[in-house]
Amino acid sequence: MVNEIYYKHMKYIIVGGVAGGATTAARLRRVDEQAEIIMFEKGPHISYANCGLPYYIGGVIKERDKLLVQTPESFGARFNIDIRILSLVTSINPVKKQVSVQSVKTGVTYTESYDKLVLSPGASPVKPPIPGINLPNIFTLRNVEDTDKIKSFVDDNTPRTAVVVGAGFIGLEMAENLHHCGVKVSVVEAAPQVMNMMDSEVAAPLHHHFKEKNVALFLKDAVKEFKQVDDTIEVNLSSGRIIKADFIILSIGVKPDTSLAKAAGIKIGETGGVWVDEYLQTSVKDIYAVGDSIEFPHPITGKPTIAFLAGPANRQGRILADNMVYGHTRKYKGSIGTAIAKVFDMTAGITGMTHRGLKAQGIKHDCTIVHAGSHAGYYPGAMQMMLKISFDPNTGRLYGGQVIGYKGVDKRLDLLATVIKNNGTIYDLQEIEHAYAPPFSSAKDPVNQLGYNAENIIRGLFKPLSPFKFAKRIKKDVFVLDVRTPEEFSIDAIEDAVNIELDAVRKNLHRIPKDKKIMIFCGVGLRGYVAARILKQNGFDKVYNLSGGLKVYRQTMD
Amino acid sequence: MVNEIYYKHMKYIIVGGVAGGATTAARLRRVDEQAEIIMFEKGPHISYANCGLPYYIGGVIKERDKLLVQTPESFGARFNIDIRILSLVTSINPVKKQVSVQSVKTGVTYTESYDKLVLSPGASPVKPPIPGINLPNIFTLRNVEDTDKIKSFVDDNTPRTAVVVGAGFIGLEMAENLHHCGVKVSVVEAAPQVMNMMDSEVAAPLHHHFKEKNVALFLKDAVKEFKQVDDTIEVNLSSGRIIKADFIILSIGVKPDTSLAKAAGIKIGETGGVWVDEYLQTSVKDIYAVGDSIEFPHPITGKPTIAFLAGPANRQGRILADNMVYGHTRKYKGSIGTAIAKVFDMTAGITGMTHRGLKAQGIKHDCTIVHAGSHAGYYPGAMQMMLKISFDPNTGRLYGGQVIGYKGVDKRLDLLATVIKNNGTIYDLQEIEHAYAPPFSSAKDPVNQLGYNAENIIRGLFKPLSPFKFAKRIKKDVFVLDVRTPEEFSIDAIEDAVNIELDAVRKNLHRIPKDKKIMIFCGVGLRGYVAARILKQNGFDKVYNLSGGLKVYRQTMD
Ligand SMILES: Cc1cc2nc3c(=O)[nH]c(=O)nc-3n(C[C@H](O)[C@H](O)[C@H](O)COP(=O)(O)OP(=O)(O)OC[C@H]3O[C@@H](n4cnc5c(N)ncnc54)[C@H](O)[C@@H]3O)c2cc1C
Ligand SMILES: Cc1cc2nc3c(=O)[nH]c(=O)nc-3n(C[C@H](O)[C@H](O)[C@H](O)COP(=O)(O)OP(=O)(O)OC[C@H]3O[C@@H](n4cnc5c(N)ncnc54)[C@H](O)[C@@H]3O)c2cc1C
Ligand SMILES: CC(C)(COP(=O)(O)OP(=O)(O)OC[C@H]1O[C@@H](n2cnc3c(N)ncnc32)[C@H](O)[C@@H]1OP(=O)(O)O)[C@@H](O)C(=O)NCCC(=O)NCCS
Ligand SMILES: CC(C)(COP(=O)(O)OP(=O)(O)OC[C@H]1O[C@@H](n2cnc3c(N)ncnc32)[C@H](O)[C@@H]1OP(=O)(O)O)[C@@H](O)C(=O)NCCC(=O)NCCS
Repeated sequence: MVNEIYYKHMKYIIVGGVAGGATTAARLRRVDEQAEIIMFEKGPHISYANCGLPYYIGGVIKERDKLLVQTPESFGARFNIDIRILSLVTSINPVKKQVSVQSVKTGVTYTESYDKLVLSPGASPVKPPIPGINLPNIFTLRNVEDTDKIKSFVDDNTPRTAVVVGAGFIGLEMAENLHHCGVKVSVVEAAPQVMNMMDSEVAAPLHHHFKEKNVALFLKDAVKEFKQVDDTIEVNLSSGRIIKADFIILSIGVKPDTSLAKAAGIKIGETGGVWVDEYLQTSVKDIYAVGDSIEFPHPITGKPTIAFLAGPANRQGRILADNMVYGHTRKYKGSIGTAIAKVFDMTAGITGMTHRGLKAQGIKHDCTIVHAGSHAGYYPGAMQMMLKISFDPNTGRLYGGQVIGYKGVDKRLDLLATVIKNNGTIYDLQEIEHAYAPPFSSAKDPVNQLGYNAENIIRGLFKPLSPFKFAKRIKKDVFVLDVRTPEEFSIDAIEDAVNIELDAVRKNLHRIPKDKKIMIFCGVGLRGYVAARILKQNGFDKVYNLSGGLKVYRQTMD
Repeated sequence: MVNEIYYKHMKYIIVGGVAGGATTAARLRRVDEQAEIIMFEKGPHISYANCGLPYYIGGVIKERDKLLVQTPESFGARFNIDIRILSLVTSINPVKKQVSVQSVKTGVTYTESYDKLVLSPGASPVKPPIPGINLPNIFTLRNVEDTDKIKSFVDDNTPRTAVVVGAGFIGLEMAENLHHCGVKVSVVEAAPQVMNMMDSEVAAPLHHHFKEKNVALFLKDAVKEFKQVDDTIEVNLSSGRIIKADFIILSIGVKPDTSLAKAAGIKIGETGGVWVDEYLQTSVKDIYAVGDSIEFPHPITGKPTIAFLAGPANRQGRILADNMVYGHTRKYKGSIGTAIAKVFDMTAGITGMTHRGLKAQGIKHDCTIVHAGSHAGYYPGAMQMMLKISFDPNTGRLYGGQVIGYKGVDKRLDLLATVIKNNGTIYDLQEIEHAYAPPFSSAKDPVNQLGYNAENIIRGLFKPLSPFKFAKRIKKDVFVLDVRTPEEFSIDAIEDAVNIELDAVRKNLHRIPKDKKIMIFCGVGLRGYVAARILKQNGFDKVYNLSGGLKVYRQTMD
C-alpha cells in the first residue's frame, strides 16, 4: 500500500508528446494529481500512432483521425496537462533548471522552469550525404506531417513507380503499402538480404514472397546517386543499375535525436543514444530520458544498445513516472528488441539475439531450426512456420528466437520473448503449457518442439548442420543421405545424395559407410533427426542432420 | 553429452496407443534403438486426433483419414514397434511382470512379459445412472469408433434436433459442430453457467453468443430421465421441463480409466487417478503411468489433481521415456490445466486457478478484469477481449488467467500460462516484451495491462469491486458514480448512479459525498480507474472501481 503523499506542486516538463512522452505524462498524472505537468511537442500532433502511419498511406487504415490516439484537447482535459504543441524546446539550462521554448508558428522564444525534466524526443531518419538526397520527391517517414506529405503526393499524382531504399521493418511495410496503392515498387538494399537484423535463412522466404507479389528486390546494391530527370528520379546503384521512379521512400534506419541533450552537456553513450542509469536518469540531476533516444545495457550481452520500439518506450514512460514521484524505486530491465512485421501475407519477427549477433559478440551458442504448423494439421487452415532459436550449448539459456510464417508467428515470438526476458532456458520452452485445441495449436506447440530439439542437441542426441556448412562440404569426405521418399527424391534431389527413405534405413545400414561423415537431410529436419538417431545407435559416429532440411537449404541458397 | 549405453534388450510394454502411449513409444525408440517395444491398443486405431473428433462430426474436418495421425503400419515401420491393435490388456501380474492380453476379435487370451510397463489408458466418459441412459441414440464421444457411430447416425438419419448434456469444453464443441450439420441443438447444464471451470463473469458472454447462434441453453437444470417416445427421446429435466430430441450427446465429464491399475493393486490417489511420483512411477516397481489416468500435485496448490489434456499427456510421455531409459532423472512438474475452446465465433480459455478454485482452497487472492483489443484499435479488424487474472495480494504471484474474446485469446492465455508455470508474478506480466506491430497487438499488450492493473491494486492505487459485490451494495451507504459520457448514460444507466463524465470529475468534486463509499464505474473499467485516482488524491477514501465496468456487470447479471 503506497502512501499517498505528494511532493506538492512538483513541476514536470516533458519534451516530446508521443509514445514515451505522453505515456510518462499520463502515468504521472495518475500518481500525482497535484503536480504541474507541461508537455512540449514541436509538431502539431501528440499521441499519434507512429506504427500505423504506413497503413494509412496504404489505405488500410482509412480514417486519418484514427492515427490520433489523443488530441491535445482530449488529453489535456482528461489528464489536466498543459499541452503545448508547435513548441520546440531549443535548449536546456540544467543549472537554472530551465528550458527554452520556441513557438514554431511565431518564432517567439520563452523559458520555462522545471523541477524534473523528461526527454522523449525520439529518433530521426538517417539521411546519408548521397548526391541528390534532398530532391523534392524523396520522402522519409516519422510523423503525421511526413505521412500527410507522402499521402497527398500519392493521391495527387497517382504515381506509377516507387523505390524504397532500405529493407528493414519500415521499408518493407512501406513497400507493401505502396503496392496496395497500385504503385509498382522496387526495394533497394545494400545487405544481401531483407531484414538484415535477422539471420539470412530466416529472412530468405521473404525474398520469394516479394517475387510472388511482384515487388522487385535489389539486394547487395547501394544507392550512389539520385538524379531528377524530367518528372522522374533516377536511382543510380553501385552495381551500375539504374532504376527510375516517380518517388522515393528512404528507410535506411534512424538515429536517436540527442541534439538537446548533447548541447546541455548530458552524457551520450557509446551507441550515440543518451546514457541513462537503471532508473532512467541521465547524467544530469533531475533530467530523465526515455524512448528511442536512450541507450541501455542489453539484457543478454550487457552491452549498450538502443531499442527503436514503441513497447519499450511505453514501458519506460510508466517506470519513469513512478521513479520521479515515489523516488528511484523501479529499475528498467532493458529490452531484448522484440520486433515483428507483417509483409504481405507473411509475418516475420525476432526477439533477443540472432546467430549473427551472438557471433559478432563472441558468445558461444548453438542454433536450431524447426518447422511446425500454426495449429493442428488435421484442422483446416494450418500453415507452416519456420522457427529458429539460439541458445547456450551448456546451460541451455535461450538467447534469441526468430519466426517467419503466415499465421501464429506473433504468438510464438511472444512466448520466446517471455522466456528470454526471464533469463529462461530451452527447458522452459518444453514446459510451456500452451492452450491447445485444434484451431489454435498442436498438442506439442512449436515452442515445445524447439525446446525438445535444442535439448537433443545439447545432450548430443544429434548434431545439427547449418545450410551454409552443408553447402561447403568436401564431397569426397561426406556421405549425403537423403531420407525422404523416392517420390520426393525424384522431384528435387541433391546431386551427391543417396536416397534411402527413413522407414528403410534400418534395413540398409550396410549401404552407409562407417568411415565418412554422414550428412542426413529430409524435408524440414524431423525425419533426418529420427534417421540420425538410428545411425548413432548403430555405431555411426559422425552423423549430422541438416537444420531445416532441404526446404531451408533451397530457400537460402537459391 | 549423453552416454549412448543402453540396457540391451529391455522389453517395454505400453497399454494404450494414443496421446500418452504413442508419444512414449516414439521417444523410447528414439533414445533406445535396441529395445523391444510392444504397444497394445484395444481399439482398431492408434495415434488418433481425439481433439479433432468433434470437428470431423461437424464436417469442418472433411477427411476421416486426417484424424489418424499415424496408422499401426506407418508407426510400426517408422519406429520399429510391435503394435497390436484390437488387443485388450485385461490384467497385470506385477510379480511375474506379465500382462494378460485378449484379442478383441477372437477372444483368445495370452500373456506377455515386460521389463517395464507403461499405462496410458486414458479416461472414460461419465455415465451416471439416470433412467434411460442406455437408450440407443444417446452417445458419448471418446474415440474414433464413437465418432463413426455419431457421424453415421447424423448422415443416415439427418436428425433435426439434439440435446447436448453438459456444457464443458467437449459439450460446447459438440454443440457448435452439430449446429454446423444443420441440427437444432439444445444444451442442458446443471450449473448456472456454461464452462463451469471458469468464473461466471468470464463465461457469461458465451450465454449471449449461444443466443445469437440460436442454440438453446438450459442452465441450472439437470436431466432426471431419458425416455424413448416413438422416434425421439424425451429429456426430462429437474425443473419439469421436457425437451424432445432425435439424439443426445452426453458430455458431463470423464473419469480416469483405472480398472487395470486398481486390479493390480497399484495405488489410486485421492482424486481417483493413478498415483504417480514425480518420475511418473506408480506405487509398483517398473510400472509407470501417464495421461488422463494419473493424478499429480497441482503446481500451485500442491493438492492432487488430474489434467484431461493432450499437451500434458504428450509431455509426460517424453519425460517418462527418458526416465525409463536413462534412469529417473527427469521430474514431471505437473500441469496448471491450460485449456481452450473455440465456441462459434468466440474463443474461451483458462489457465491456472480461478477465483472460484482459489476460494474453495482457501487461498487468499485478488482478481482483476481488463478489456483490451486483440490488436491496435486503429488497425482494421481489432476485437475486444476480456481478461481476468487472480494473484497473491502481497507477493503478486500470478495464480490464474481466463480470457474470452474473438481473436488473439490463445496468445494471451499462452503468455499467462508461461508466467504462471514459471511461478511468476504480475510484475513479470509487465515485463513481457511482446512483438508489436499494429496487426498483432498494441504498444501495451493486454497482458501488460493486466500486470499494471494488478500492481495498482496491490499498491492500493485503487480498489477493485466485483460485479457481484456491486450488485449487493446497500444503496443508502453508497454513492454510485458513472463516469461515462452523457450519451452512454442516456442509453443504459444504473438507477442509483450519478453521471459525471470523467473529464468533468475534477470540476465536480463538490457533488461527491465524502462520508459515503464511492462506487465508480465506466464502460469497462479504465475511465473508472482514472476517476478513482482523481478522487483518492482529493481526499476521498473509500473509492471502488467496478471491475470490467458496466459491460461485465450487465453480461453477468442479465
Ligand atoms: C513509420 C513508423 C512505424 C513504426 N512501427 C513500429 C512498430 O510496428 N512497432 C514498434 O514497436 N515500433 C514502431 N515504430 C517505432 C515507435 O514509433 C517508436 O519507437 C516510438 O514512437 C518511440 O517513442 P519516443 O517517445 O521515443 O519518440 P516519438 O514517439 O517519435 O516521439 C517523439 C516526439 O518528440 C518530438 N520532439 C522531438 N524533439 C523535440 C523538441 N526539441 N521539442 C519538442 N518536441 C520535440 C517529436 O516531434 C516527436 O513527436 C515505428 C516508427 C515509425 C516512424
Ligand atoms: C472429443 C475429445 C476432444 C478433446 N479435445 C481436447 C482438446 O481440444 N485439447 C486437449 O488438450 N485435450 C483434448 N482432449 C483430451 C485429450 O484427447 C486427452 O487428454 C488425451 O488424449 C489423453 O491421452 P491418454 O494417452 O491418457 O489417453 P487416450 O489418448 O484417450 O488414449 C488411451 C487409449 O488407451 C486405450 N486403452 C484403454 N484401456 C486399454 C486396455 N486395457 N488395453 C488396451 N488399450 C486400452 C484406449 O482405447 C485409448 O485408445 C479431448 C478428448 C476428447 C475425447
Ligand atoms: C494515448 C497514451 C497517452 C495513453 O497512455 P496511457 O494512459 O498510459 O495508456 P492506456 O490508455 O493504455 O492506459 C493504461 C492505463 O490504464 C490502466 N488500465 C487499462 N485497462 C484498465 C481497466 N480495464 N481497468 C482499470 N485500469 C485499466 C492501466 O493499468 C494503465 O494505468 P497505469 O499506467 O496507471 O497502471 C499513450 O499510449 C500514447 O500517446 N500512445 C500513442 C503513441 C504511441 O504509443 N505510439 C507508438 C505506438 S503506435
Ligand atoms: C503421432 C505421435 C506418435 C508422434 O509422437 P512424436 O514422434 O513424439 O511427436 P512429433 O511427431 O511431434 O515429433 C516430436 C519429435 O520430433 C523432434 N522434432 C520436431 N521437429 C523437428 C525438426 N525440425 N528437426 C529435428 N527434430 C524435430 C522433436 O524434438 C521430438 O523429438 P524428441 O521427443 O525425441 O525430442 C503422437 O504425437 C501421437 O500419437 N499423436 C496423436 C495422439 C494425440 O496426441 N492426441 C491428442 C491430441 S489430438
